[in-house]
Amino acid sequence: MKLTGFELRRIALPLVAPFRTSFGTETTRDALLVRAVGADAEGWGECVAMSAPLYSSEYVDAAIDVLRRYFVPAMTGVERGTQVAPALAKFHGHRMAKAALETAVLDAELRTEGRTLARELGAVHDRVPCGVSVGIMDSIDELLTAVGGYLDEGYLRIKLKIQPGWDIAPVAAVRERYGDDVLLQVDANTAYAVSDARHLAQLDAFDLLLIEQPLDEEDILGHAELARQVETPICLDESITSARAAAAAISLGACSIVNVKPGRVGGYLESRRIHDVCVANGIPVWAGGMLETGLGRAANVALAALPGFTLPGDTSGSSRYYRTDITAPFTLDAGHLAVPTGPGIGVEPLPDELAAVTVSTEWLTL
Amino acid sequence: MKLTGFELRRIALPLVAPFRTSFGTETTRDALLVRAVGADAEGWGECVAMSAPLYSSEYVDAAIDVLRRYFVPAMTGVERGTQVAPALAKFHGHRMAKAALETAVLDAELRTEGRTLARELGAVHDRVPCGVSVGIMDSIDELLTAVGGYLDEGYLRIKLKIQPGWDIAPVAAVRERYGDDVLLQVDANTAYAVSDARHLAQLDAFDLLLIEQPLDEEDILGHAELARQVETPICLDESITSARAAAAAISLGACSIVNVKPGRVGGYLESRRIHDVCVANGIPVWAGGMLETGLGRAANVALAALPGFTLPGDTSGSSRYYRTDITAPFTLDAGHLAVPTGPGIGVEPLPDELAAVTVSTEWLTL
Amino acid sequence: MKLTGFELRRIALPLVAPFRTSFGTETTRDALLVRAVGADAEGWGECVAMSAPLYSSEYVDAAIDVLRRYFVPAMTGVERGTQVAPALAKFHGHRMAKAALETAVLDAELRTEGRTLARELGAVHDRVPCGVSVGIMDSIDELLTAVGGYLDEGYLRIKLKIQPGWDIAPVAAVRERYGDDVLLQVDANTAYAVSDARHLAQLDAFDLLLIEQPLDEEDILGHAELARQVETPICLDESITSARAAAAAISLGACSIVNVKPGRVGGYLESRRIHDVCVANGIPVWAGGMLETGLGRAANVALAALPGFTLPGDTSGSSRYYRTDITAPFTLDAGHLAVPTGPGIGVEPLPDELAAVTVSTEWLTL
Amino acid sequence: MKLTGFELRRIALPLVAPFRTSFGTETTRDALLVRAVGADAEGWGECVAMSAPLYSSEYVDAAIDVLRRYFVPAMTGVERGTQVAPALAKFHGHRMAKAALETAVLDAELRTEGRTLARELGAVHDRVPCGVSVGIMDSIDELLTAVGGYLDEGYLRIKLKIQPGWDIAPVAAVRERYGDDVLLQVDANTAYAVSDARHLAQLDAFDLLLIEQPLDEEDILGHAELARQVETPICLDESITSARAAAAAISLGACSIVNVKPGRVGGYLESRRIHDVCVANGIPVWAGGMLETGLGRAANVALAALPGFTLPGDTSGSSRYYRTDITAPFTLDAGHLAVPTGPGIGVEPLPDELAAVTVSTEWLTL
Repeated sequence: MKLTGFELRRIALPLVAPFRTSFGTETTRDALLVRAVGADAEGWGECVAMSAPLYSSEYVDAAIDVLRRYFVPAMTGVERGTQVAPALAKFHGHRMAKAALETAVLDAELRTEGRTLARELGAVHDRVPCGVSVGIMDSIDELLTAVGGYLDEGYLRIKLKIQPGWDIAPVAAVRERYGDDVLLQVDANTAYAVSDARHLAQLDAFDLLLIEQPLDEEDILGHAELARQVETPICLDESITSARAAAAAISLGACSIVNVKPGRVGGYLESRRIHDVCVANGIPVWAGGMLETGLGRAANVALAALPGFTLPGDTSGSSRYYRTDITAPFTLDAGHLAVPTGPGIGVEPLPDELAAVTVSTEWLTL
Repeated sequence: MKLTGFELRRIALPLVAPFRTSFGTETTRDALLVRAVGADAEGWGECVAMSAPLYSSEYVDAAIDVLRRYFVPAMTGVERGTQVAPALAKFHGHRMAKAALETAVLDAELRTEGRTLARELGAVHDRVPCGVSVGIMDSIDELLTAVGGYLDEGYLRIKLKIQPGWDIAPVAAVRERYGDDVLLQVDANTAYAVSDARHLAQLDAFDLLLIEQPLDEEDILGHAELARQVETPICLDESITSARAAAAAISLGACSIVNVKPGRVGGYLESRRIHDVCVANGIPVWAGGMLETGLGRAANVALAALPGFTLPGDTSGSSRYYRTDITAPFTLDAGHLAVPTGPGIGVEPLPDELAAVTVSTEWLTL
Repeated sequence: MKLTGFELRRIALPLVAPFRTSFGTETTRDALLVRAVGADAEGWGECVAMSAPLYSSEYVDAAIDVLRRYFVPAMTGVERGTQVAPALAKFHGHRMAKAALETAVLDAELRTEGRTLARELGAVHDRVPCGVSVGIMDSIDELLTAVGGYLDEGYLRIKLKIQPGWDIAPVAAVRERYGDDVLLQVDANTAYAVSDARHLAQLDAFDLLLIEQPLDEEDILGHAELARQVETPICLDESITSARAAAAAISLGACSIVNVKPGRVGGYLESRRIHDVCVANGIPVWAGGMLETGLGRAANVALAALPGFTLPGDTSGSSRYYRTDITAPFTLDAGHLAVPTGPGIGVEPLPDELAAVTVSTEWLTL
Repeated sequence: MKLTGFELRRIALPLVAPFRTSFGTETTRDALLVRAVGADAEGWGECVAMSAPLYSSEYVDAAIDVLRRYFVPAMTGVERGTQVAPALAKFHGHRMAKAALETAVLDAELRTEGRTLARELGAVHDRVPCGVSVGIMDSIDELLTAVGGYLDEGYLRIKLKIQPGWDIAPVAAVRERYGDDVLLQVDANTAYAVSDARHLAQLDAFDLLLIEQPLDEEDILGHAELARQVETPICLDESITSARAAAAAISLGACSIVNVKPGRVGGYLESRRIHDVCVANGIPVWAGGMLETGLGRAANVALAALPGFTLPGDTSGSSRYYRTDITAPFTLDAGHLAVPTGPGIGVEPLPDELAAVTVSTEWLTL
């Protein structure tokens, strides 16, 4: 496959409701799409960086800059998805930008050849169970209403964002209202310290699937210490930036579950390697979400169909985040999303919807 | 101290000779200077990011962007150097940019009050012993000539950059030519894998002070394994991004010496914390270098005067890198550089020299 | 700053009520004050040694002797607080005497330059949350009355002194009477043996913040073993005599919290190093108390304003111990004490009050 | 045995030659003797504290003060040597003063009953092999002359004091001159850092019996790390202050040999316990020396006759230190000293010699 160039397209997609985590509140998804143009097909990659360097050091403007300045020029001679990471290996960091680029090239390659991303990655399911991530709210009542709505929609697992001051009480309230059978987990997005171990151990009473990323992403030993003090399984998210990081965290006892986010780790190929390392170590994985549009969601669903993804993911339906997505929406069916069956990532942007939310585009000829 | 704004100044300072490491070759130092302007004094900080994200994820353009977009606006209300890091804590990464900003504010504060950075950090020496870093060369002969020149200049310690194919032989040649009394160490800049342990153990025969950062910066467990197989002390550079990272690496046995680079760790205040953590653990530290101009060099020399800096640093004389520096040059005296005695970092740019190498300036009002 | 000499002043300050610990009972605070006299300012340091060598090997008469005989003469040529510890490094032990001397010099230096100790140490708060230490009493009723009084005064955390025979029952009684929301911890002052582990584990039922120094100060391995058997966090006090001791105790798993007492560790500068080592290891610290007068209290409050002091300290209001203090009293405001804002330690002795409690003075010319 | 009181006697005994260690140089032995007076006998204890707090926190004036003020008054009701330590247990530190007091009481008790200290402690030999400690000198030649003299006198083992700059070369010179059969060891008196491990490992080539106390007395973990890097056995001196400290150091791998000094550990009864702990762990012990007069030497020789003392001690002949001792001199016989056979410590002061060197005496009635 001969690549002729790349388009960087920035979009602003209105969120159906503000999304609040311990990082802050978002009302519009400011996102970057990368389009790889080949002789016979084009491919799409979505960069999951946020507007500001709050979840990680990456942000949209920075991703655009590093892609334009260093990464796209390094694509000269690249013809396959597997060649992208080696071509970028000398550059440190910027994994979300790298992932978007690799996904675009891989999508173009797969479409050229008529293969699906799911099959390419080794998927074994044709649909994946879905959970939903519920942000921090102003009151327990508001939270219970929201959770009830999601359960009614058929979500198979509820994830509550927590932070100091919003943790034990909301979990207890959800358990009390909706019973012990609801699959429930919490996500702290690094908001705690290892000295909060005994406080977090109060969550042990609620039979949670996991506590996600309670401590700073760099504090692997802290997570290991926490895992010794808290019975609820520790799941790492931000800390797992590569298959090597996963292997190290596992060997140090820092996690017993891993959230896989392809953007965070540099792409779907590294995600598969993390999956493989985790399965080899008996560590369940599940698919995280970064408020993706349908383009990113499609690829995440494909990944979530691999055999080690034994826990429901944050692969919610499109309507969880967006009234109007830039692709045909993903719709929940009995708590599951269908794995796309078309070539590549299996979905394409809807031209009008895409145009309506486009903020800027930039073409980079190879 | 009331701050009125910041100037971002990009300069291109010609190197006296190309500098080659396992990352590549540089001929001009593309650097960013941050000037903090207060009511009674202004301060300077030098951002050590390189042109491209090869040493770390940071690079000059990215530093300018994140400073302009997020970090400088967050300085509203900041009046002292110690307030900079807390004001930036919510932003992930970009430590070199943060360090430059903190140093500029701290320098302005100290100049306002007539205190020296050296004293502020707890320096106990008035001069520091200097080593020199010698890049990878085309031949052993060329290397021996270069090393001989540096020894003649009085450098007290030689550091050889190494990479696979340029490691045992150049070390052996330097030892053979210049004897066992030369303080000698090597720097691999992440160019090896843990499976190279037995190869690297061949260096044990040459009584080196240390092997610097042999493995990938994220591979802490790999360094710990290497330390079990190689007798030469392992020193970490790129891996140590914070006092917490230092504490973790030490507790995992990944290093017995630490190279402190203020840019890499977010500033001089965090550098002091790393120094204190290392001293408490019996770990010697030394001052690294990032091809600083006189502005950055002055501050590094102040830091290197702390009591735990028991090994000679890469704090070379200005002429090692620049024919004409933007400050009065630092000159080696019997292998030492004098710790600046003026307020703040103790040096100021020479207006003409600074103007001559300035590529662009940008003023950001608070 | 040129120092001309030091005054050693012994005072006897009546306690508002007898204070009883596992060491004994005190009714008057027999204390030593060190006054450093410089050209432009003088500074104060309070020696926290008790009358007899019961808390540590130091006591007031011994401190006076070693200061007069060895430490003050070693101050010749010292001009700054940071030079005191190096000048005394060859002398073993006597950390409380060293701390008083260093604090006096540092205070004089800071007053000369108009800077505050809080800022010098890196304080980030302008007030600190206060707990109170409650001695061993004759009956549970008496204890409950005392605790109720302190809670009414606004203290944010209660610490109960315990010893064999006075441990589980008083803790249970306080919990029962005042509820689960009271922040509660206990201090054993080395009164137990590691074989008491199962007995002490009965405290786990009461959700205590910590157990302070249960075993002999030299029994680091015993504390590590205890930490494996007791869920309540182990906090070390007497055992932590330096940043090195802190690093070692942490690496051996002997504590998960540290009480910082500047007198015990040789001064405020070493206290900051301990703070930094603990923060780097995820270990919370808090400020202990040694029945300080307002002079020592002022400096402790400054230290407690550092970011790692995340637990309320024993920095009680002056009236907790003294009817009439030798400085303007520290008064609790909504459970907090304000960090002094004046230069140096920020307070000065009241001449009449100081004279009234002075037992002896001795002037030592440098 | 009913005790009526104690005499504290300070003496100044001229040294035969200046004794230089890494702590400094002594020319006269400033020492404290404690005389316990009972109804039927009196006993002697020698306090090994030096003039200044350089070896430990104790010094002669401080020992006198703490004995007069706290320890002697606590002897009320004490009738046997074994009761001394429990009566002093509540007082922290001051082990040399405690040891002197306990020895005096024990000596009086044993004399009253006609038993020997050697038998009381469990001695199994009637003479002990002697080594000599050789101070740091101005030149290698001077050192070789001194060592030759001691070998001629019959000393069975040579110990060289070392410090940075006086270590490898003097050891090599002694080995070269006097051959591989000389039992040789070195004593660093805490003069090194753990980062000197590779330097100290150069001593491995010289088949030394041991390296004594290379690091700071509080740095147990550092000694453990050093023991992993250096083949020569690590012996602890200053660090071993009690049987518990010995057990902890052994379990951490910090030493494989222990120097027992009764003054350092609080007396001969605790020394026997350290001996027992070491023997149980397969750790050889040997008797250190603190420039004792004949009184202290007699007791040390008794202790050195226990079965675990398998290495020659620093129990030199009196003439090694003093031209005229205050007791009948201990004289080397084929490299050995005879264990005293008289009651108690087995020797008594010579009245005239004692009077001649007495500086002051103080009588304390019980």
